[in-house]
Amino acid sequence: MSTIDELLDANQGYARTFDRGNLPLPPARRIAILTCMDARILPSRVLGLEEGDAHVIRNAGGRARDALRSLIISQRLLGTREVAVIHHTDCGMLTFNNRELREKVKDDLGSDTGEFDFLPFQDLNESVREDVEFLLATQLLNQDTLIRGFVYDVRTGRLREVDVGATLASTEERAEGQKGGEAITAP
Amino acid sequence: MSTIDELLDANQGYARTFDRGNLPLPPARRIAILTCMDARILPSRVLGLEEGDAHVIRNAGGRARDALRSLIISQRLLGTREVAVIHHTDCGMLTFNNRELREKVKDDLGSDTGEFDFLPFQDLNESVREDVEFLLATQLLNQDTLIRGFVYDVRTGRLREVDVGATLASTEERAEGQKGGEAITAP
Repeated sequence: MSTIDELLDANQGYARTFDRGNLPLPPARRIAILTCMDARILPSRVLGLEEGDAHVIRNAGGRARDALRSLIISQRLLGTREVAVIHHTDCGMLTFNNRELREKVKDDLGSDTGEFDFLPFQDLNESVREDVEFLLATQLLNQDTLIRGFVYDVRTGRLREVDVGATLASTEERAEGQKGGEAITAP
Repeated sequence: MSTIDELLDANQGYARTFDRGNLPLPPARRIAILTCMDARILPSRVLGLEEGDAHVIRNAGGRARDALRSLIISQRLLGTREVAVIHHTDCGMLTFNNRELREKVKDDLGSDTGEFDFLPFQDLNESVREDVEFLLATQLLNQDTLIRGFVYDVRTGRLREVDVGATLASTEERAEGQKGGEAITAP
């Protein structure tokens, strides 16, 4: 029996008692969570989320560049206003670099990944800062989005906020820019 | 109080009773789930997942192209062997096309997205098929990966499998190809 078949069995149980079939499409709590695909993280438990509360975007590492398409859609079509970027301790992304993984794909599968960027990182606080700053800098999200970054500790289940230097000032400047700027026109 | 602050409060409660701090990095059930960021989907509840069970990759629509980087890492570094692609009813991706969203970003933010592909779709069965076929065709995943596609019904909480035509035959051919093929060399 495949794992997929086991999950389908579990779904029968969920559907049997399901009573949340009338929730609206837009997230009630107007937030998008960006975190890693890591199996040890269950965002609904870690953050106390119920069906309908929040967009949850997950990829290897919880990287922002990979999530930009989703975040634009989250804000423009579904009205979210906050983003929480959550990386975590003992992340697989800390264990390799691009050259090594490209070689492994070549060795295992015979396939050439070319210049494929797997977005690995060496330092957890730095990766969170980099991703928060990337989201603060892009012109493709609302300039007054509240964006904060965290490290989740897989040993304790606890979130720790990462100090992202000039974030607050930068957020205020960006909101100003949106009101009076030239490149960015307020709606 | 921001939503993020509320989530941090909820996290205190989770951490207080947390007792799963010794789980290994690789997913115990060797599967990667690919689904939409939609707020109404809580994969752990829908599929009966516990901490440590499965990689969960989520983006707007649950699109495969956006998830390829994560899936390569999931397989090469962390040993997953199955992929479940799960799109869902009432998905935001059914409500717009690229031209419309590019115009909305321009109107709301004054920013030019150029040829940015937001990967919207018009037909749910077709989008699942397209994504399963994309993953079956790539040379960057194990050729014997079990890949199946589903539609999750947000009104009933139930999963329905999408028939992806030649999937099974194709999987067998691919496994054959991996054994004896030229482009793909077995490990």
